[in-house]
Amino acid sequence: MEKNKSISKVVIRRLPKYYRHLEELVKKDVDVISSRELGEKTGFTASKIRQDLNHFGDFGQQGYGYNIQELYKQIKSILGLDKEYKAVIIGAGNLGQAIANYTRFDKLGFEIKCIFDVNPKLIDMKIRDIPIRDIDEINSFLEMEKIHIGIICVPKRNAQDVTKKLIKGNVKAIWNFAPIDILAPSNIIIENVHLNESLARLIYFLNESDD
Amino acid sequence: MEKNKSISKVVIRRLPKYYRHLEELVKKDVDVISSRELGEKTGFTASKIRQDLNHFGDFGQQGYGYNIQELYKQIKSILGLDKEYKAVIIGAGNLGQAIANYTRFDKLGFEIKCIFDVNPKLIDMKIRDIPIRDIDEINSFLEMEKIHIGIICVPKRNAQDVTKKLIKGNVKAIWNFAPIDILAPSNIIIENVHLNESLARLIYFLNESDD
Repeated sequence: MEKNKSISKVVIRRLPKYYRHLEELVKKDVDVISSRELGEKTGFTASKIRQDLNHFGDFGQQGYGYNIQELYKQIKSILGLDKEYKAVIIGAGNLGQAIANYTRFDKLGFEIKCIFDVNPKLIDMKIRDIPIRDIDEINSFLEMEKIHIGIICVPKRNAQDVTKKLIKGNVKAIWNFAPIDILAPSNIIIENVHLNESLARLIYFLNESDD
Repeated sequence: MEKNKSISKVVIRRLPKYYRHLEELVKKDVDVISSRELGEKTGFTASKIRQDLNHFGDFGQQGYGYNIQELYKQIKSILGLDKEYKAVIIGAGNLGQAIANYTRFDKLGFEIKCIFDVNPKLIDMKIRDIPIRDIDEINSFLEMEKIHIGIICVPKRNAQDVTKKLIKGNVKAIWNFAPIDILAPSNIIIENVHLNESLARLIYFLNESDD
């Protein structure tokens, strides 16, 4: 994927949105879409879309629009969604359970192998065939099985400790739902979902619109 | 809040992160922080921070840093987090339950009044004193009680229908967890949490780092 190294992170951050809309169009058997129509769906301007998609080769024909199938396949491959990834969840509370139950992630080539928790009542239970195990077993588990992604669903105070365990177990990417910025070496990939920040933004715009 | 109307959305999107870090510092009884230190915490550059915070008045003294208490209070007020908001959740599945159970949101002045679902097994149950009611009752509920925020935790195919019900019930802001872009009039505030896009980004960077 050397050719894509020069694509800016900003463009990359928009790709999953293109991907999601293209997937919908593929399902609906639509063949071609113009940058204007794709703009209406994604909320980006037509010129930004043309700029973004130009990075990935020549999918569009001036005046005819983009070949949806081709563009979808290419973005899927760029995003690495044509491969398989193994994940573990740490924290079997409501959020951890919600993620374990969310079957739509399966389509992203994403398999959750195990959930870890400290609560003895939860241990040895299963969520959709995914076993819940004692957090004390995580080290030996990660030694036995190659896991790509650790999903942190524990309270804030435990998040950094869990991060250390994951990194020790050779996990390279962390999806963090704890409301703190976890610290990790720069080779570890971290994607944060800070729900409280999202809610604060919503409240700001709500408050502003009331003025 | 007229004076803030000129603040760009980009700056506003960063404020919740400042707020979260300042809250931590207030709890730790720290009095002053430099833009460099705040940069290390937030991941923004010191110059961006100085630029951002200049919008909100004169909290810093050259060479001395920012008065944390003052800055925290001001950003809290700008974000509207010193007010109270009432919300309903639609969808009492795992994600809806996770949000209902998440007590940290209470600190944002955010009260969940009711959860609605279609599943007869869930109706009349409670989550942390929050009742679950039949979705058919949402219209009459919204007529009786002023609700500011609707939280959509239903499957994709039902999200647009739920949006209509909320707007009809005079709800002005929607926190959308369904993996589609819902359509609403421009006066309605929508904040999307697209977990599949977040996961796709994580997978991209993981895949890229393996090359």
